[in-house]
Amino acid sequence: MSHTSAAARASSPAPSSGSHRFSSVIHRIAEEMNTLDDHGTPADYIPMLADADPRRFGMAVAEPDGTVYGVGDWRQPFSTQSISKVFALALALSLDGGQLWRGVGREPSGNPFNSLVQLEYENGIPRNPFINAGALVVTDRLQALTGDAAGQVRDLLRTESGNAAIDFVPQVAASEAAFGDRNAALAHFMASYGNITLPVPALLAAYFRQCSIEASCADLALAAGFLARGGVRADGSALLTRSQAKQVNAVMLTCGTYDAAGEFAYRVGLPGKSGVGGGIIAIVPGVCTLCVWSPGLDKRGNSVAGVSALDRFTTLTGLSVF
Amino acid sequence: MSHTSAAARASSPAPSSGSHRFSSVIHRIAEEMNTLDDHGTPADYIPMLADADPRRFGMAVAEPDGTVYGVGDWRQPFSTQSISKVFALALALSLDGGQLWRGVGREPSGNPFNSLVQLEYENGIPRNPFINAGALVVTDRLQALTGDAAGQVRDLLRTESGNAAIDFVPQVAASEAAFGDRNAALAHFMASYGNITLPVPALLAAYFRQCSIEASCADLALAAGFLARGGVRADGSALLTRSQAKQVNAVMLTCGTYDAAGEFAYRVGLPGKSGVGGGIIAIVPGVCTLCVWSPGLDKRGNSVAGVSALDRFTTLTGLSVF
Amino acid sequence: MSHTSAAARASSPAPSSGSHRFSSVIHRIAEEMNTLDDHGTPADYIPMLADADPRRFGMAVAEPDGTVYGVGDWRQPFSTQSISKVFALALALSLDGGQLWRGVGREPSGNPFNSLVQLEYENGIPRNPFINAGALVVTDRLQALTGDAAGQVRDLLRTESGNAAIDFVPQVAASEAAFGDRNAALAHFMASYGNITLPVPALLAAYFRQCSIEASCADLALAAGFLARGGVRADGSALLTRSQAKQVNAVMLTCGTYDAAGEFAYRVGLPGKSGVGGGIIAIVPGVCTLCVWSPGLDKRGNSVAGVSALDRFTTLTGLSVF
Amino acid sequence: MSHTSAAARASSPAPSSGSHRFSSVIHRIAEEMNTLDDHGTPADYIPMLADADPRRFGMAVAEPDGTVYGVGDWRQPFSTQSISKVFALALALSLDGGQLWRGVGREPSGNPFNSLVQLEYENGIPRNPFINAGALVVTDRLQALTGDAAGQVRDLLRTESGNAAIDFVPQVAASEAAFGDRNAALAHFMASYGNITLPVPALLAAYFRQCSIEASCADLALAAGFLARGGVRADGSALLTRSQAKQVNAVMLTCGTYDAAGEFAYRVGLPGKSGVGGGIIAIVPGVCTLCVWSPGLDKRGNSVAGVSALDRFTTLTGLSVF
Repeated sequence: MSHTSAAARASSPAPSSGSHRFSSVIHRIAEEMNTLDDHGTPADYIPMLADADPRRFGMAVAEPDGTVYGVGDWRQPFSTQSISKVFALALALSLDGGQLWRGVGREPSGNPFNSLVQLEYENGIPRNPFINAGALVVTDRLQALTGDAAGQVRDLLRTESGNAAIDFVPQVAASEAAFGDRNAALAHFMASYGNITLPVPALLAAYFRQCSIEASCADLALAAGFLARGGVRADGSALLTRSQAKQVNAVMLTCGTYDAAGEFAYRVGLPGKSGVGGGIIAIVPGVCTLCVWSPGLDKRGNSVAGVSALDRFTTLTGLSVF
Repeated sequence: MSHTSAAARASSPAPSSGSHRFSSVIHRIAEEMNTLDDHGTPADYIPMLADADPRRFGMAVAEPDGTVYGVGDWRQPFSTQSISKVFALALALSLDGGQLWRGVGREPSGNPFNSLVQLEYENGIPRNPFINAGALVVTDRLQALTGDAAGQVRDLLRTESGNAAIDFVPQVAASEAAFGDRNAALAHFMASYGNITLPVPALLAAYFRQCSIEASCADLALAAGFLARGGVRADGSALLTRSQAKQVNAVMLTCGTYDAAGEFAYRVGLPGKSGVGGGIIAIVPGVCTLCVWSPGLDKRGNSVAGVSALDRFTTLTGLSVF
Repeated sequence: MSHTSAAARASSPAPSSGSHRFSSVIHRIAEEMNTLDDHGTPADYIPMLADADPRRFGMAVAEPDGTVYGVGDWRQPFSTQSISKVFALALALSLDGGQLWRGVGREPSGNPFNSLVQLEYENGIPRNPFINAGALVVTDRLQALTGDAAGQVRDLLRTESGNAAIDFVPQVAASEAAFGDRNAALAHFMASYGNITLPVPALLAAYFRQCSIEASCADLALAAGFLARGGVRADGSALLTRSQAKQVNAVMLTCGTYDAAGEFAYRVGLPGKSGVGGGIIAIVPGVCTLCVWSPGLDKRGNSVAGVSALDRFTTLTGLSVF
Repeated sequence: MSHTSAAARASSPAPSSGSHRFSSVIHRIAEEMNTLDDHGTPADYIPMLADADPRRFGMAVAEPDGTVYGVGDWRQPFSTQSISKVFALALALSLDGGQLWRGVGREPSGNPFNSLVQLEYENGIPRNPFINAGALVVTDRLQALTGDAAGQVRDLLRTESGNAAIDFVPQVAASEAAFGDRNAALAHFMASYGNITLPVPALLAAYFRQCSIEASCADLALAAGFLARGGVRADGSALLTRSQAKQVNAVMLTCGTYDAAGEFAYRVGLPGKSGVGGGIIAIVPGVCTLCVWSPGLDKRGNSVAGVSALDRFTTLTGLSVF
């Protein structure tokens, strides 16, 4: 295991100031993950993701003071995919102060037949900002507010992680676009209810770009630090109010892991957000942020080793929110 | 406001040993609740509930050491209704060690068209133990294990609260039975999938009895104390393992307030369970349990002043889990 | 093949007055049915039906003048099951003159997830009188009007067919009751909307009795004769107005064969009603009524050889309504 | 009332050869329609349709020999809208011989929440060719087979009616496109299942063009003549086999009038297809074809006076298929 603070990583090595209190626990977890019977299967609709070795595993912890350390492939960039939705949500909330909630709900979806059905029953208002339909609304609003939703998300990740190399991966965005009919259907359907402001092709382009951002466990654990610090960014300024930060955590807990949010809350007990790239971020409010990556997914699209590692983390440390 | 420990209440007055640290905040909240524009409407299908004054309000805090104190109508018994489901769940889990989860899920329902639809898609396995269908499964299992599900729940409430006067209200159970066709439909439907073991009429009788238990905010705050103490009962013995207690809290957070679980997590940020009698219990793990009562309900069946008071509590104290 | 008129069958042999114009065509069809690759599978939830040989086949034609003739097992009694719903519907319409349509619709269900879902969306009003929920409403009304819905249906079959031996089969009714949870769920659910007037157990008893009636192809082809005669019974009196008879035929065409009504209209092109006992009746208005029986069912619950035989009949005779 | 045969209309006046047997009955109906209390409301999302006077009424009868006559506005061109789907279906069937049915079903939709929900349950295969999703599949196939689906439909109408002036109305197609998000959602959604072959924008352009064709009652009654003649075109050649013609009629009867197909079968008892332009065609196999037009619609999108006039026609003539 290596470790470093965010500031150090951005420039030159410097002595870490953090406690590294979870160093031994994450090493233990990494060893346990080697023995998993089934690591799941990588997402297959994006060629660059499909080839990943499902046995790869990385985990990083970022403490509130910006110290970050990890184990395994914790510095390996991977496709953030839906994890980017957390940052897009935070930016949209910080800029529009809650108008967003007129166009997207905060309730779990709970629908194994996915969101299109529910979207029709609920007149084009998606249930929450983390299902695809809701994330499209968030990107639509952020694009309207800033003119470059995807760029804003990338820049937030860069600034909070101190890693200026974080960027889009055009081939991944292109793969998403090639399989984009379902997202196009969702966007047009919401547009038919007046709940999308951009032209659908422009919205989809921004959305696929946002999802194509590549970052490492170290980057994402640091970048999500504001959610463990009551909304405060790495530089001490406020991205969100304390109340807003809690609310984002609440939405992550109830809606952050697709159809398995209840199971995740039950097993892990932390606000978390997964992506089909195999990453999951999780927040221990006031204590630390975690990011784990392993590309093999379960049937619901969550990283098998990722969920398992977080489950072990809260079991070993007693640090769930419950 | 008056206050007392559970032990004291059960016998003779004794000096409270607790901190009463939330005494002033709940007084402030009670005053604020007086000024609410709209207190909602009591449930109208049970005559004994329909007549309640929606402006009544009580709130109690129980600390882990058994101290309890409150404000307003905090000693007024009311119909626990769905709050009883938390205690039935805890008892079933403690007795069967997890077999229960074969017949009921842990995912939020998220379905505004309610559970019958979902139940069909999911082959008779209800989404979680707090929607009616899931609670029927819990009562079915508890009845099979103990022969008297409703009596077990009542006795748990009595023991943990120290109030031996807690009991069923037969007229309320009879009113539920008179409007019981929908619950009968749910039970028969699950039975058609083999997910109910009792004869349906016997199950319904047990279920309606369980829901008819009357208790006060003081009683319920004390009785739910084991969920703030990692599963430990008032007498120091374990009802649940620490892990099980956290799991019950997780299910309460994601599924405890009908279709409004996401909203409740967002506004209040605590595991909570409401009932159509106007009560809500909420858990601050390691810190205290809360019970609030006000009979006026919002459209989703949660007490208007109850949710508002809990929202204010976490805002004023900063004590949400997020 | 043998043949006889209804009157003849009821008493002593008499010269048939009918044309027997379809005699050769049904013989040809019967031969073709012997060569079917797959005869399907009998319904398995009722023991007395499960044991039937799926290769058995009978077909009868009744001409408007009461002549009846057939081929194969055309005189073999079988369980009418849902075919009885047509007669219940006709009786209810004749007695209440259309009040019935307040509680049940006339639209195809079209829902592969079956009627419980739809019932919830549509507030307890079933889509049509031939899905189980709708048939329960019809029996409920007929029971309320006559005090003995099942007896009325049996008596109508007896009178129109001239066969006084037609009767209930208590073991079949008992088997249905033993697997009756889903129908109980439907009935209670509709009762929760006020769309059932009887106590549910009484309704179910009447309904299961009605479905347990046993009759042969000859009996049913004769008994349905009023639908080919504009509502006129065998004795020349009117059971239904001409308009009502057409309406029953219309409902049969659009809703008579479960989820396969469109396919049946497309292939056969006649008003028809099937039952899980393997029977199907079909109406050629003004020309004849048909009844076919073969106990092997397809996935949607319609007799494989039955549908095929009717398909061949309309192809060979050109007698579809289109 | 005036009258003429199709051939006559196309060139010079000629003695009509038809029987005009329904001349007096349609006059009587037209008078009755004047006294309707409520003529409904024109479709409002297409400006050119919204301004129509709901009291306008026309009705035409075409006999199998090509004689056509009518009453009221029977020569007034109107927007065919969904009526064009019948002709697209017939063309696709005639060209691909049934391959079409791999991508679209033949069952009534029966879903008041419309097709998007059902489409998801059924993996992108629409229930029938007359709901929008199914019609998009038909146009997709016809476009793939011919390179100009809309042009083929227009040309069929021209040839069969003998009216070379029938054409698209670009402003109507443009209005449809401006409100096309829902159709775009359907098309992209089916494309996500591989059930659309064209690029979605190209498909939508063809579809909106096809729907924008304007024709009169006289034109449409004549053009649909092949469905009353067992598939035979006006010139004696076969567009469809007799069997295919019957099958199109069956699909019209079970699926031709949106959510009201059961009601239409019950009241009118003829295969029919309506459009939001206020037109309805209906087939009396072997006898005649009817087209009625009145722009005021009921809640389900069918012409109020149109349905009423057809109801009266079958009541007065006894000519329903049942």
